[in-house]
Amino acid sequence: MTFLNKGFVLASRPEHAPSPSNFRLVTSEMAAPGDGEVIVRHHFLSLDPYMRGRMNDPKSYAEPQKLDEIMGGGTVGEVVASNNPAFAVGDKVVGMGGWQLYARSTGKDFRKITRPHLPIQAYLGPVGMPGVTAWYGINAILAPKPGETVTVSAATGAVGSVAGQLAKIAGARVVGIAGGEAKCRFATEVLGYDLCVDHRASDFEARLEAAVPDGIDAVFENVGGKPLELCLARLNDFARVAICGLVASGYDGTPTPMRDVKLILDRRCRIEGFIVSDHMKLWPQAINELADYLEDDRLGWWESVAEGLEAAPEAFIGMLQGKNFGKQLVKLI
Amino acid sequence: MTFLNKGFVLASRPEHAPSPSNFRLVTSEMAAPGDGEVIVRHHFLSLDPYMRGRMNDPKSYAEPQKLDEIMGGGTVGEVVASNNPAFAVGDKVVGMGGWQLYARSTGKDFRKITRPHLPIQAYLGPVGMPGVTAWYGINAILAPKPGETVTVSAATGAVGSVAGQLAKIAGARVVGIAGGEAKCRFATEVLGYDLCVDHRASDFEARLEAAVPDGIDAVFENVGGKPLELCLARLNDFARVAICGLVASGYDGTPTPMRDVKLILDRRCRIEGFIVSDHMKLWPQAINELADYLEDDRLGWWESVAEGLEAAPEAFIGMLQGKNFGKQLVKLI
Repeated sequence: MTFLNKGFVLASRPEHAPSPSNFRLVTSEMAAPGDGEVIVRHHFLSLDPYMRGRMNDPKSYAEPQKLDEIMGGGTVGEVVASNNPAFAVGDKVVGMGGWQLYARSTGKDFRKITRPHLPIQAYLGPVGMPGVTAWYGINAILAPKPGETVTVSAATGAVGSVAGQLAKIAGARVVGIAGGEAKCRFATEVLGYDLCVDHRASDFEARLEAAVPDGIDAVFENVGGKPLELCLARLNDFARVAICGLVASGYDGTPTPMRDVKLILDRRCRIEGFIVSDHMKLWPQAINELADYLEDDRLGWWESVAEGLEAAPEAFIGMLQGKNFGKQLVKLI
Repeated sequence: MTFLNKGFVLASRPEHAPSPSNFRLVTSEMAAPGDGEVIVRHHFLSLDPYMRGRMNDPKSYAEPQKLDEIMGGGTVGEVVASNNPAFAVGDKVVGMGGWQLYARSTGKDFRKITRPHLPIQAYLGPVGMPGVTAWYGINAILAPKPGETVTVSAATGAVGSVAGQLAKIAGARVVGIAGGEAKCRFATEVLGYDLCVDHRASDFEARLEAAVPDGIDAVFENVGGKPLELCLARLNDFARVAICGLVASGYDGTPTPMRDVKLILDRRCRIEGFIVSDHMKLWPQAINELADYLEDDRLGWWESVAEGLEAAPEAFIGMLQGKNFGKQLVKLI
């Protein structure tokens, strides 16, 4: 029994914005599982901004993506062959299977899905890496208090949409920042943001200023660039800033400077960068809380789905440009 | 009974570096204490970098120094007249008496000195505001672990000298940054720094690089400018940066930019600004620990003493230029 596998490898590292030529489609025969191994057929691949960072070479991330190897990425799927007593054929699993139709694994890259009544792809969204990322930033770093003002950039994205909803659950006044009027309407009308400011508007700075008349107590930052600079300038004393991602600037090599670190002293604020994979021991607690919110209808989620593996590079590039709405997935089956 | 008081008021706000003309000497008759009041005769005035920040007008600090009012500042002295049952003539006290020979107070600005066998001016140094500042930055923010590398700028200053010694007590490898070979020798030979790098050396960058071969885990920052930029570039993953002061740059309006906030994400580090007066409830614990270290000879301290109130402006300006050695005091009696 073999499986015809297809996947994308990293062909070259982008200088700035990635292009389709940075990826190369490869096909291979995948043999039956060896001793202790399982084969997982992927249903969905998750596309996430952190992948852009890993495409860079140097010290940017702990483990950069290697050239000519299958692009890493979160996947959900089903065990189709098992030589590992911990997994049965038919088990639904979530793990880091990469940009490919099938994954071979010893099983340690995959966890069984614990709430099978949820749509399987929720494990790539609100009860997956993006959800836990939002949970960690809001709960472990920002800890917003009732009545405080929190801003969330990429407010409608996979992480931002959960972060905004968690900040509302905490009792904060939550101001989103998103690209375009449609996303901003979605943020306020569907996600429950108090306000959302369009960073593409020509009077963005004035709108942001008006949206935070009492200043900003906590920033959940996914984007960087001008919006972050403007938020930093409006921080209140003892503000917290969680740097979760810098998709619009840093990954492409365009720096987001801070004009003067003196503001950190003047405002006695705390700025902290984090990557959720550094905090795996909090994962079960976070997943449980998020799944409870989901089941209680206190947390909604939205997704953009690209059809078929071949659509992955374009969908990824589009996501980096803000074309997606909610979690960007690729449907593989 | 009246007292002939003399003091300095803020005459004008400096544009950049302060000059003697920003201060004006005033004299006045101070009447006997009213109901509930005490008169304190100051023995020592403390000169501290934070005063430079308060000389600026805008949102820089919670309470800027007002024009034409006596410059604020920490003092130690002795009660010379009391109409307050909590204080007797002869009590030694520490408080915020300002740049003047005498202070009139309801008593709430002053605390009685609890370990009278220590030299009174220690309450302006290692068991006073500078000591508690160092204690807070090291213990509440940086929490250095044994074997980690900690850098301390203004390594021989009133705050830095205590911070470096506390980091050594915590078991860290401690690298000082100071201006001039004499201070650097003092840091290693007397204060116990493992190394100290002269930021005035033409090959400062190379020396700093060589001094931290394993990168930097914690930064106690008193200065800002180029040394801070270079330290930030050498941060390890999960590094902590405590911004205590930016004497050499920020106060004078020269910004210390951060080239790219992406480093905060890449290194998953935490940068936090603090002002010790925000944390008064930790003061007694800090003072007790510091006084114990002092009595056990685990903590040394050094001071530069200017003679007489009239010497205060020049001593203050000199301190901002790094001319002092250890804690800068003005002897008033």
